[in-house]
Amino acid sequence: MKLISFRHGAIDSYGLVDDQQVLDLGAVAGAEAPDLKTALAKGLLSTLAARPAPTLPYASVTLLPVLHNPGKIFCVGHNYEKHRQETGRAKVAHPSIFTRFADTLIAHGAPIVRPRVSTNLDFEGELAIVIGKGGRYIPEDEAMAHIAGFTCANDASVRDWQWHTQQFTPGKNFPSTGALGPWLVTADEITDLPAITVTTRLNGQVVQQAPLADLIFPLPVIVAYLSSFSPLSPGDVILTGTPGGVGAKREPPLWMKPGDVVEVDISGVGLLRNEIVDEA
Amino acid sequence: MKLISFRHGAIDSYGLVDDQQVLDLGAVAGAEAPDLKTALAKGLLSTLAARPAPTLPYASVTLLPVLHNPGKIFCVGHNYEKHRQETGRAKVAHPSIFTRFADTLIAHGAPIVRPRVSTNLDFEGELAIVIGKGGRYIPEDEAMAHIAGFTCANDASVRDWQWHTQQFTPGKNFPSTGALGPWLVTADEITDLPAITVTTRLNGQVVQQAPLADLIFPLPVIVAYLSSFSPLSPGDVILTGTPGGVGAKREPPLWMKPGDVVEVDISGVGLLRNEIVDEA
Repeated sequence: MKLISFRHGAIDSYGLVDDQQVLDLGAVAGAEAPDLKTALAKGLLSTLAARPAPTLPYASVTLLPVLHNPGKIFCVGHNYEKHRQETGRAKVAHPSIFTRFADTLIAHGAPIVRPRVSTNLDFEGELAIVIGKGGRYIPEDEAMAHIAGFTCANDASVRDWQWHTQQFTPGKNFPSTGALGPWLVTADEITDLPAITVTTRLNGQVVQQAPLADLIFPLPVIVAYLSSFSPLSPGDVILTGTPGGVGAKREPPLWMKPGDVVEVDISGVGLLRNEIVDEA
Repeated sequence: MKLISFRHGAIDSYGLVDDQQVLDLGAVAGAEAPDLKTALAKGLLSTLAARPAPTLPYASVTLLPVLHNPGKIFCVGHNYEKHRQETGRAKVAHPSIFTRFADTLIAHGAPIVRPRVSTNLDFEGELAIVIGKGGRYIPEDEAMAHIAGFTCANDASVRDWQWHTQQFTPGKNFPSTGALGPWLVTADEITDLPAITVTTRLNGQVVQQAPLADLIFPLPVIVAYLSSFSPLSPGDVILTGTPGGVGAKREPPLWMKPGDVVEVDISGVGLLRNEIVDEA
Protein backbone atom coordinates (compact mmCIF):
# COMPACT_ATOMS: atom_id res chain seq x y z
CA MET A 1 0.00 0.00 0.00
CA LYS A 2 0.99 3.61 -0.60
CA LEU A 3 -0.42 5.83 2.13
CA ILE A 4 -0.60 9.60 2.18
CA SER A 5 -1.70 12.29 4.58
CA PHE A 6 -3.53 15.05 2.78
CA ARG A 7 -5.78 18.08 2.97
CA HIS A 8 -8.90 18.26 0.82
CA GLY A 9 -10.89 21.45 1.12
CA ALA A 10 -10.63 22.32 4.81
CA ILE A 11 -10.41 18.66 5.93
CA ASP A 12 -7.19 16.87 6.91
CA SER A 13 -7.33 13.18 6.16
CA TYR A 14 -5.24 10.24 4.97
CA GLY A 15 -5.68 7.53 2.46
CA LEU A 16 -4.45 5.00 0.03
CA VAL A 17 -3.02 6.05 -3.32
CA ASP A 18 -4.08 3.72 -6.08
CA ASP A 19 -3.17 4.80 -9.61
CA GLN A 20 -4.42 8.40 -9.84
CA GLN A 21 -7.02 7.98 -7.12
CA VAL A 22 -7.01 8.42 -3.39
CA LEU A 23 -9.19 6.19 -1.23
CA ASP A 24 -10.13 8.45 1.66
CA LEU A 25 -9.53 6.15 4.63
CA GLY A 26 -9.83 9.02 7.08
CA ALA A 27 -13.43 9.52 5.97
CA VAL A 28 -14.10 5.83 6.65
CA ALA A 29 -12.42 5.83 10.06
CA GLY A 30 -13.91 9.09 11.33
CA ALA A 31 -13.19 9.85 14.97
CA GLU A 32 -11.87 6.31 15.51
CA ALA A 33 -8.64 7.28 13.74
CA PRO A 34 -8.48 10.95 12.73
CA ASP A 35 -4.93 10.71 11.36
CA LEU A 36 -2.49 8.22 9.91
CA LYS A 37 -0.55 7.98 13.17
CA THR A 38 -3.66 6.85 15.03
CA ALA A 39 -4.61 4.40 12.28
CA LEU A 40 -1.12 2.88 12.54
CA ALA A 41 -1.31 2.77 16.33
CA LYS A 42 -4.67 1.03 16.25
CA GLY A 43 -3.60 -1.36 13.48
CA LEU A 44 -6.61 -0.30 11.41
CA LEU A 45 -5.13 0.21 7.96
CA SER A 46 -5.89 -3.18 6.43
CA THR A 47 -9.42 -3.11 7.84
CA LEU A 48 -10.04 0.41 6.59
CA ALA A 49 -8.60 -0.36 3.16
CA ALA A 50 -11.00 -3.29 2.81
CA ARG A 51 -14.08 -1.13 3.42
CA PRO A 52 -15.75 0.93 0.70
CA ALA A 53 -14.25 4.42 0.78
CA PRO A 54 -14.93 7.68 -1.05
CA THR A 55 -12.39 8.33 -3.81
CA LEU A 56 -10.73 11.60 -4.71
CA PRO A 57 -8.56 12.40 -7.72
CA TYR A 58 -4.90 12.42 -6.59
CA ALA A 59 -4.47 15.79 -8.31
CA SER A 60 -7.22 17.29 -6.15
CA VAL A 61 -5.56 16.78 -2.79
CA THR A 62 -2.80 18.80 -1.11
CA LEU A 63 -0.22 16.49 0.38
CA LEU A 64 0.79 16.85 4.03
CA PRO A 65 4.02 15.39 5.38
CA VAL A 66 3.40 11.61 5.39
CA LEU A 67 3.27 11.85 9.17
CA HIS A 68 2.54 15.42 10.23
CA ASN A 69 2.43 14.79 13.97
CA PRO A 70 4.99 12.09 14.82
CA GLY A 71 5.73 11.78 18.51
CA LYS A 72 9.45 11.46 17.87
CA ILE A 73 11.70 12.12 14.91
CA PHE A 74 15.16 10.58 15.17
CA CYS A 75 17.93 11.25 12.66
CA VAL A 76 21.04 9.13 12.19
CA GLY A 77 24.24 11.00 11.33
CA HIS A 78 27.24 9.79 9.30
CA ASN A 79 25.71 6.46 8.41
CA TYR A 80 27.26 6.00 4.97
CA GLU A 81 31.01 5.45 4.80
CA LYS A 82 31.60 8.06 2.08
CA HIS A 83 29.70 10.68 4.09
CA ARG A 84 31.55 9.74 7.27
CA GLN A 85 34.84 10.25 5.45
CA GLU A 86 33.89 13.57 3.83
CA THR A 87 32.83 14.96 7.22
CA GLY A 88 36.02 13.75 8.89
CA ARG A 89 34.15 11.86 11.61
CA ALA A 90 35.82 9.07 13.57
CA LYS A 91 34.51 5.52 13.27
CA VAL A 92 32.09 4.87 16.12
CA ALA A 93 30.56 1.77 17.66
CA HIS A 94 27.04 3.23 17.82
CA PRO A 95 24.86 5.33 15.53
CA SER A 96 25.05 9.10 15.98
CA ILE A 97 21.55 10.32 16.91
CA PHE A 98 20.01 13.78 16.78
CA THR A 99 16.38 14.88 16.65
CA ARG A 100 13.95 17.08 14.75
CA PHE A 101 10.78 18.69 15.99
CA ALA A 102 7.58 17.91 14.07
CA ASP A 103 7.15 21.57 13.11
CA THR A 104 10.14 21.27 10.79
CA LEU A 105 8.27 18.84 8.52
CA ILE A 106 6.91 19.68 5.09
CA ALA A 107 5.24 17.62 2.38
CA HIS A 108 6.25 16.61 -1.10
CA GLY A 109 5.74 19.69 -3.27
CA ALA A 110 5.91 22.19 -0.41
CA PRO A 111 8.79 24.66 -0.37
CA ILE A 112 11.94 24.16 1.70
CA VAL A 113 12.50 27.52 3.36
CA ARG A 114 15.97 29.06 3.47
CA PRO A 115 15.93 31.07 6.70
CA ARG A 116 16.86 34.71 6.63
CA VAL A 117 19.75 34.07 9.04
CA SER A 118 21.78 31.82 6.73
CA THR A 119 22.69 31.01 3.14
CA ASN A 120 24.32 27.66 4.05
CA LEU A 121 21.31 25.49 3.18
CA ASP A 122 22.30 21.93 2.27
CA PHE A 123 20.49 18.81 1.01
CA GLU A 124 20.49 15.39 2.65
CA GLY A 125 18.49 12.70 0.82
CA GLU A 126 17.57 9.81 3.12
CA LEU A 127 15.37 6.77 3.47
CA ALA A 128 12.97 7.30 6.38
CA ILE A 129 11.46 4.53 8.50
CA VAL A 130 7.96 4.86 9.93
CA ILE A 131 7.38 2.79 13.06
CA GLY A 132 4.22 0.67 13.02
CA LYS A 133 4.54 -1.22 16.28
CA GLY A 134 6.10 0.45 19.29
CA GLY A 135 8.40 -1.04 21.85
CA ARG A 136 11.38 -0.77 24.18
CA TYR A 137 14.50 -2.89 24.03
CA ILE A 138 13.50 -4.26 20.64
CA PRO A 139 15.95 -7.04 19.65
CA GLU A 140 17.67 -6.62 16.28
CA ASP A 141 16.16 -9.82 14.97
CA GLU A 142 12.64 -8.55 15.67
CA ALA A 143 13.22 -4.96 14.56
CA MET A 144 11.90 -5.26 11.01
CA ALA A 145 8.49 -6.33 12.34
CA HIS A 146 8.20 -2.93 14.08
CA ILE A 147 8.51 -1.02 10.80
CA ALA A 148 5.24 0.00 9.11
CA GLY A 149 6.99 1.20 6.00
CA PHE A 150 9.27 3.67 4.31
CA THR A 151 9.24 7.11 2.80
CA CYS A 152 11.70 9.61 1.34
CA ALA A 153 13.19 12.38 3.44
CA ASN A 154 15.26 15.46 2.85
CA ASP A 155 17.03 16.31 6.10
CA ALA A 156 17.80 19.81 4.80
CA SER A 157 20.45 21.36 7.02
CA VAL A 158 21.52 24.88 7.84
CA ARG A 159 25.22 24.08 8.14
CA ASP A 160 26.61 27.14 9.90
CA TRP A 161 23.96 26.77 12.61
CA GLN A 162 24.53 23.00 12.75
CA TRP A 163 28.19 23.69 13.48
CA HIS A 164 27.79 26.48 16.04
CA THR A 165 28.70 23.80 18.60
CA GLN A 166 29.10 20.02 18.50
CA GLN A 167 25.35 19.55 19.00
CA PHE A 168 23.51 19.59 15.66
CA THR A 169 20.08 20.67 17.01
CA PRO A 170 19.95 24.26 15.67
CA GLY A 171 20.92 23.47 12.08
CA LYS A 172 18.43 20.60 11.91
CA ASN A 173 15.37 22.34 13.32
CA PHE A 174 14.58 25.37 11.22
CA PRO A 175 10.90 25.36 10.20
CA SER A 176 10.07 23.88 6.80
CA THR A 177 13.39 22.10 6.30
CA GLY A 178 12.37 18.49 6.89
CA ALA A 179 10.71 17.17 3.74
CA LEU A 180 8.89 13.86 4.16
CA GLY A 181 6.97 12.08 1.42
CA PRO A 182 5.32 11.75 -0.92
CA TRP A 183 3.89 8.58 0.65
CA LEU A 184 4.49 5.75 3.04
CA VAL A 185 5.17 2.51 1.20
CA THR A 186 4.26 -0.37 3.48
CA ALA A 187 7.12 -2.69 4.35
CA ASP A 188 5.53 -5.71 2.63
CA GLU A 189 6.04 -4.00 -0.75
CA ILE A 190 9.83 -3.83 -0.38
CA THR A 191 11.29 -7.22 -1.18
CA ASP A 192 14.99 -6.39 -1.60
CA LEU A 193 15.85 -3.75 1.00
CA PRO A 194 19.66 -3.64 0.50
CA ALA A 195 19.16 -3.00 -3.22
CA ILE A 196 17.16 0.18 -2.64
CA THR A 197 19.11 3.16 -3.95
CA VAL A 198 18.90 6.64 -2.47
CA THR A 199 19.53 9.32 -5.10
CA THR A 200 19.46 13.07 -4.52
CA ARG A 201 19.27 15.45 -7.48
CA LEU A 202 19.72 19.20 -7.36
CA ASN A 203 18.26 20.90 -10.45
CA GLY A 204 18.37 17.56 -12.25
CA GLN A 205 22.02 16.80 -11.43
CA VAL A 206 22.77 13.75 -9.28
CA VAL A 207 24.54 14.96 -6.12
CA GLN A 208 24.19 11.92 -3.85
CA GLN A 209 23.68 8.26 -4.62
CA ALA A 210 24.15 5.09 -2.61
CA PRO A 211 22.42 1.75 -2.12
CA LEU A 212 21.00 0.96 1.29
CA ALA A 213 23.53 -1.88 1.42
CA ASP A 214 26.15 0.81 2.14
CA LEU A 215 24.61 1.81 5.49
CA ILE A 216 27.18 1.52 8.29
CA PHE A 217 24.41 0.76 10.80
CA PRO A 218 21.61 -1.14 9.02
CA LEU A 219 17.95 -0.67 9.85
CA PRO A 220 17.61 -3.39 12.54
CA VAL A 221 20.63 -2.02 14.41
CA ILE A 222 19.17 1.50 14.32
CA VAL A 223 15.74 0.43 15.58
CA ALA A 224 17.25 -1.73 18.34
CA TYR A 225 19.64 1.00 19.45
CA LEU A 226 17.00 3.76 19.55
CA SER A 227 14.55 1.58 21.45
CA SER A 228 17.23 0.86 24.07
CA PHE A 229 17.08 4.42 25.36
CA SER A 230 13.70 5.70 24.13
CA PRO A 231 10.40 3.83 23.78
CA LEU A 232 9.28 3.80 20.16
CA SER A 233 5.64 4.39 19.24
CA PRO A 234 3.59 3.98 16.08
CA GLY A 235 4.14 6.93 13.77
CA ASP A 236 7.64 7.69 15.04
CA VAL A 237 9.96 8.58 12.17
CA ILE A 238 13.61 7.64 11.77
CA LEU A 239 15.81 9.28 9.14
CA THR A 240 18.45 6.66 8.44
CA GLY A 241 21.35 8.80 7.26
CA THR A 242 22.51 10.48 4.08
CA PRO A 243 25.00 9.30 1.41
CA GLY A 244 28.22 11.15 0.61
CA GLY A 245 28.15 14.19 -1.62
CA VAL A 246 26.60 16.86 0.62
CA GLY A 247 27.01 20.43 -0.60
CA ALA A 248 28.98 21.63 2.42
CA LYS A 249 31.91 19.33 1.69
CA ARG A 250 32.33 20.30 -1.97
CA GLU A 251 34.90 22.74 -3.28
CA PRO A 252 33.42 25.30 -3.55
CA PRO A 253 30.44 24.46 -1.32
CA LEU A 254 27.17 23.86 -3.17
CA TRP A 255 24.36 25.57 -1.26
CA MET A 256 20.69 25.36 -2.19
CA LYS A 257 19.22 28.71 -3.16
CA PRO A 258 15.77 30.08 -3.98
CA GLY A 259 14.43 28.61 -7.21
CA ASP A 260 16.47 25.41 -6.93
CA VAL A 261 14.61 22.12 -7.14
CA VAL A 262 15.79 19.23 -5.00
CA GLU A 263 14.63 15.65 -5.46
CA VAL A 264 15.12 12.59 -3.27
CA ASP A 265 14.46 9.58 -5.47
CA ILE A 266 14.41 6.22 -3.71
CA SER A 267 13.93 3.14 -5.88
CA GLY A 268 10.75 1.28 -5.00
CA VAL A 269 9.74 3.95 -2.51
CA GLY A 270 9.06 7.25 -4.27
CA LEU A 271 10.21 10.63 -5.48
CA LEU A 272 10.20 13.58 -3.07
CA ARG A 273 10.45 16.92 -4.84
CA ASN A 274 10.75 20.37 -3.23
CA GLU A 275 11.65 23.83 -4.42
CA ILE A 276 13.73 26.22 -2.34
CA VAL A 277 12.26 29.58 -1.34
CA ASP A 278 13.57 32.39 0.79
CA GLU A 279 11.88 33.05 4.11
CA ALA A 280 9.18 35.67 3.66
CA MET B 1 2.04 32.24 42.04
CA LYS B 2 3.27 28.68 42.48
CA LEU B 3 1.61 26.37 39.96
CA ILE B 4 1.59 22.59 39.92
CA SER B 5 0.31 19.86 37.68
CA PHE B 6 -1.13 17.01 39.70
CA ARG B 7 -3.24 13.88 39.81
CA HIS B 8 -6.03 13.56 42.34
CA GLY B 9 -7.90 10.29 42.28
CA ALA B 10 -8.09 9.41 38.61
CA ILE B 11 -8.18 13.06 37.48
CA ASP B 12 -5.22 15.02 36.08
CA SER B 13 -5.43 18.71 36.86
CA TYR B 14 -3.34 21.74 37.77
CA GLY B 15 -3.57 24.43 40.32
CA LEU B 16 -2.15 27.01 42.58
CA VAL B 17 -0.24 26.05 45.71
CA ASP B 18 -1.03 28.34 48.59
CA ASP B 19 0.38 27.32 51.96
CA GLN B 20 -0.64 23.65 52.33
CA GLN B 21 -3.61 23.93 50.01
CA VAL B 22 -4.07 23.50 46.29
CA LEU B 23 -6.60 25.61 44.44
CA ASP B 24 -7.82 23.30 41.69
CA LEU B 25 -7.73 25.63 38.69
CA GLY B 26 -8.21 22.73 36.29
CA ALA B 27 -11.61 22.07 37.85
CA VAL B 28 -12.54 25.72 37.28
CA ALA B 29 -11.31 25.79 33.70
CA GLY B 30 -12.80 22.46 32.60
CA ALA B 31 -12.53 21.73 28.90
CA GLU B 32 -11.48 25.32 28.21
CA ALA B 33 -7.99 24.51 29.54
CA PRO B 34 -7.53 20.86 30.50
CA ASP B 35 -3.85 21.26 31.38
CA LEU B 36 -1.36 23.88 32.50
CA LYS B 37 0.11 24.20 29.02
CA THR B 38 -3.27 25.17 27.59
CA ALA B 39 -3.96 27.57 30.46
CA LEU B 40 -0.60 29.26 29.74
CA ALA B 41 -1.31 29.36 26.01
CA LYS B 42 -4.71 30.94 26.54
CA GLY B 43 -3.40 33.37 29.15
CA LEU B 44 -6.05 32.17 31.60
CA LEU B 45 -4.09 31.75 34.81
CA SER B 46 -4.82 35.10 36.44
CA THR B 47 -8.49 34.86 35.51
CA LEU B 48 -8.77 31.32 36.84
CA ALA B 49 -6.93 32.17 40.05
CA ALA B 50 -9.41 34.98 40.73
CA ARG B 51 -12.42 32.68 40.50
CA PRO B 52 -13.61 30.55 43.43
CA ALA B 53 -11.98 27.14 43.15
CA PRO B 54 -12.24 23.84 45.02
CA THR B 55 -9.34 23.32 47.40
CA LEU B 56 -7.42 20.14 48.09
CA PRO B 57 -4.84 19.44 50.78
CA TYR B 58 -1.37 19.61 49.17
CA ALA B 59 -0.56 16.26 50.81
CA SER B 60 -3.49 14.62 49.04
CA VAL B 61 -2.32 15.21 45.47
CA THR B 62 0.29 13.32 43.46
CA LEU B 63 2.52 15.75 41.64
CA LEU B 64 3.06 15.43 37.88
CA PRO B 65 6.01 17.04 36.13
CA VAL B 66 5.22 20.77 36.20
CA LEU B 67 4.60 20.52 32.48
CA HIS B 68 3.91 16.92 31.51
CA ASN B 69 3.29 17.53 27.82
CA PRO B 70 5.56 20.35 26.64
CA GLY B 71 5.80 20.69 22.87
CA LYS B 72 9.55 21.19 23.02
CA ILE B 73 12.21 20.64 25.66
CA PHE B 74 15.53 22.33 24.96
CA CYS B 75 18.63 21.80 27.07
CA VAL B 76 21.67 24.06 27.13
CA GLY B 77 25.05 22.35 27.55
CA HIS B 78 28.23 23.69 29.17
CA ASN B 79 26.67 26.95 30.27
CA TYR B 80 28.65 27.51 33.49
CA GLU B 81 32.36 28.22 33.17
CA LYS B 82 33.43 25.66 35.77
CA HIS B 83 31.40 22.94 34.04
CA ARG B 84 32.77 23.96 30.64
CA GLN B 85 36.29 23.61 31.99
CA GLU B 86 35.71 20.26 33.72
CA THR B 87 34.26 18.81 30.50
CA GLY B 88 37.15 20.16 28.43
CA ARG B 89 34.85 21.96 25.99
CA ALA B 90 36.11 24.81 23.82
CA LYS B 91 34.69 28.30 24.30
CA VAL B 92 31.90 28.83 21.79
CA ALA B 93 30.05 31.84 20.47
CA HIS B 94 26.61 30.22 20.78
CA PRO B 95 24.83 28.03 23.33
CA SER B 96 25.15 24.28 22.85
CA ILE B 97 21.62 22.88 22.39
CA PHE B 98 20.27 19.36 22.71
CA THR B 99 16.75 18.09 23.32
CA ARG B 100 14.68 15.79 25.50
CA PHE B 101 11.45 14.03 24.69
CA ALA B 102 8.51 14.67 27.02
CA ASP B 103 8.37 10.99 28.01
CA THR B 104 11.64 11.43 29.93
CA LEU B 105 9.97 13.79 32.44
CA ILE B 106 9.11 12.90 36.01
CA ALA B 107 7.72 14.88 38.93
CA HIS B 108 9.12 15.94 42.26
CA GLY B 109 9.05 12.86 44.46
CA ALA B 110 8.95 10.36 41.60
CA PRO B 111 11.92 8.02 41.15
CA ILE B 112 14.73 8.66 38.71
CA VAL B 113 15.23 5.33 36.96
CA ARG B 114 18.73 3.95 36.40
CA PRO B 115 18.36 1.93 33.20
CA ARG B 116 19.47 -1.66 33.12
CA VAL B 117 21.97 -0.90 30.36
CA SER B 118 24.19 1.46 32.38
CA THR B 119 25.51 2.31 35.83
CA ASN B 120 26.85 5.74 34.71
CA LEU B 121 23.88 7.77 35.97
CA ASP B 122 24.81 11.37 36.77
CA PHE B 123 23.04 14.40 38.25
CA GLU B 124 22.67 17.83 36.64
CA GLY B 125 20.81 20.41 38.72
CA GLU B 126 19.46 23.25 36.59
CA LEU B 127 17.10 26.18 36.54
CA ALA B 128 14.36 25.53 33.97
CA ILE B 129 12.46 28.22 32.09
CA VAL B 130 8.81 27.72 31.12
CA ILE B 131 7.73 29.77 28.10
CA GLY B 132 4.52 31.74 28.55
CA LYS B 133 4.31 33.64 25.29
CA GLY B 134 5.52 32.02 22.08
CA GLY B 135 7.42 33.62 19.24
CA ARG B 136 10.07 33.45 16.56
CA TYR B 137 13.08 35.73 16.29
CA ILE B 138 12.48 37.08 19.79
CA PRO B 139 14.91 39.95 20.45
CA GLU B 140 17.07 39.62 23.57
CA ASP B 141 15.60 42.76 25.08
CA GLU B 142 12.08 41.32 24.83
CA ALA B 143 12.96 37.77 25.86
CA MET B 144 12.12 38.02 29.55
CA ALA B 145 8.51 38.93 28.68
CA HIS B 146 8.15 35.52 26.99
CA ILE B 147 8.98 33.63 30.20
CA ALA B 148 6.01 32.47 32.31
CA GLY B 149 8.21 31.37 35.15
CA PHE B 150 10.80 29.00 36.52
CA THR B 151 11.13 25.56 38.00
CA CYS B 152 13.87 23.17 39.13
CA ALA B 153 15.19 20.48 36.83
CA ASN B 154 17.48 17.51 37.14
CA ASP B 155 18.84 16.72 33.68
CA ALA B 156 19.94 13.27 34.85
CA SER B 157 22.33 11.84 32.30
CA VAL B 158 23.46 8.37 31.33
CA ARG B 159 27.02 9.34 30.56
CA ASP B 160 28.31 6.35 28.63
CA TRP B 161 25.33 6.58 26.29
CA GLN B 162 25.71 10.37 26.09
CA TRP B 163 29.26 9.86 24.86
CA HIS B 164 28.66 7.05 22.36
CA THR B 165 29.11 9.75 19.72
CA GLN B 166 29.33 13.56 19.78
CA GLN B 167 25.53 13.84 19.78
CA PHE B 168 24.15 13.72 23.34
CA THR B 169 20.64 12.47 22.46
CA PRO B 170 20.85 8.89 23.79
CA GLY B 171 22.24 9.73 27.22
CA LYS B 172 19.66 12.48 27.72
CA ASN B 173 16.54 10.60 26.72
CA PHE B 174 16.17 7.54 28.91
CA PRO B 175 12.64 7.39 30.40
CA SER B 176 12.21 8.84 33.90
CA THR B 177 15.48 10.77 33.94
CA GLY B 178 14.22 14.35 33.49
CA ALA B 179 12.93 15.58 36.86
CA LEU B 180 10.90 18.81 36.69
CA GLY B 181 9.29 20.49 39.66
CA PRO B 182 7.96 20.76 42.20
CA TRP B 183 6.18 23.83 40.84
CA LEU B 184 6.32 26.69 38.41
CA VAL B 185 7.10 29.97 40.15
CA THR B 186 5.77 32.79 38.03
CA ALA B 187 8.37 35.26 36.80
CA ASP B 188 6.89 38.20 38.72
CA GLU B 189 7.91 36.52 42.00
CA ILE B 190 11.62 36.54 41.11
CA THR B 191 13.03 39.99 41.70
CA ASP B 192 16.78 39.34 41.65
CA LEU B 193 17.42 36.74 38.96
CA PRO B 194 21.26 36.80 38.95
CA ALA B 195 21.29 36.15 42.71
CA ILE B 196 19.36 32.87 42.38
CA THR B 197 21.60 29.99 43.41
CA VAL B 198 21.37 26.50 41.96
CA THR B 199 22.46 23.86 44.49
CA THR B 200 22.50 20.10 43.91
CA ARG B 201 22.81 17.73 46.87
CA LEU B 202 23.40 14.00 46.67
CA ASN B 203 22.45 12.24 49.91
CA GLY B 204 22.63 15.59 51.71
CA GLN B 205 26.11 16.52 50.40
CA VAL B 206 26.43 19.60 48.18
CA VAL B 207 27.82 18.45 44.81
CA GLN B 208 27.04 21.46 42.61
CA GLN B 209 26.47 25.11 43.47
CA ALA B 210 26.51 28.30 41.41
CA PRO B 211 24.58 31.54 41.17
CA LEU B 212 22.67 32.26 37.97
CA ALA B 213 25.04 35.22 37.51
CA ASP B 214 27.66 32.64 36.44
CA LEU B 215 25.74 31.57 33.33
CA ILE B 216 27.91 31.96 30.22
CA PHE B 217 24.81 32.60 28.10
CA PRO B 218 22.18 34.36 30.24
CA LEU B 219 18.47 33.70 29.89
CA PRO B 220 17.65 36.41 27.29
CA VAL B 221 20.45 35.17 25.02
CA ILE B 222 19.19 31.58 25.29
CA VAL B 223 15.58 32.51 24.49
CA ALA B 224 16.61 34.73 21.58
CA TYR B 225 18.96 32.10 20.14
CA LEU B 226 16.46 29.22 20.38
CA SER B 227 13.69 31.28 18.83
CA SER B 228 15.97 32.10 15.90
CA PHE B 229 15.81 28.54 14.62
CA SER B 230 12.68 27.14 16.28
CA PRO B 231 9.36 28.83 17.07
CA LEU B 232 8.74 28.83 20.82
CA SER B 233 5.27 28.07 22.21
CA PRO B 234 3.63 28.37 25.62
CA GLY B 235 4.64 25.46 27.81
CA ASP B 236 7.97 24.87 26.09
CA VAL B 237 10.67 24.10 28.63
CA ILE B 238 14.30 25.22 28.54
CA LEU B 239 16.90 23.69 30.85
CA THR B 240 19.48 26.42 31.19
CA GLY B 241 22.62 24.43 31.99
CA THR B 242 24.27 22.81 34.97
CA PRO B 243 27.02 24.11 37.30
CA GLY B 244 30.40 22.43 37.66
CA GLY B 245 30.77 19.38 39.87
CA VAL B 246 29.06 16.64 37.86
CA GLY B 247 29.80 13.11 39.01
CA ALA B 248 31.40 11.98 35.75
CA LYS B 249 34.30 14.42 36.09
CA ARG B 250 35.24 13.48 39.66
CA GLU B 251 38.07 11.15 40.61
CA PRO B 252 36.76 8.53 41.05
CA PRO B 253 33.47 9.24 39.25
CA LEU B 254 30.45 9.69 41.51
CA TRP B 255 27.50 7.84 39.99
CA MET B 256 23.97 7.88 41.38
CA LYS B 257 22.80 4.45 42.52
CA PRO B 258 19.57 2.94 43.80
CA GLY B 259 18.60 4.36 47.18
CA ASP B 260 20.42 7.65 46.63
CA VAL B 261 18.46 10.85 47.11
CA VAL B 262 19.21 13.79 44.84
CA GLU B 263 17.95 17.31 45.46
CA VAL B 264 17.99 20.38 43.25
CA ASP B 265 17.50 23.36 45.51
CA ILE B 266 17.06 26.72 43.79
CA SER B 267 16.73 29.76 46.01
CA GLY B 268 13.38 31.47 45.57
CA VAL B 269 12.17 28.75 43.21
CA GLY B 270 11.89 25.43 45.03
CA LEU B 271 13.35 22.12 46.07
CA LEU B 272 13.16 19.16 43.69
CA ARG B 273 13.79 15.83 45.38
CA ASN B 274 14.04 12.41 43.77
CA GLU B 275 15.24 9.00 44.79
CA ILE B 276 17.13 6.70 42.45
CA VAL B 277 15.71 3.28 41.66
CA ASP B 278 16.86 0.52 39.36
CA GLU B 279 14.79 -0.22 36.30
CA ALA B 280 12.30 -2.97 37.08
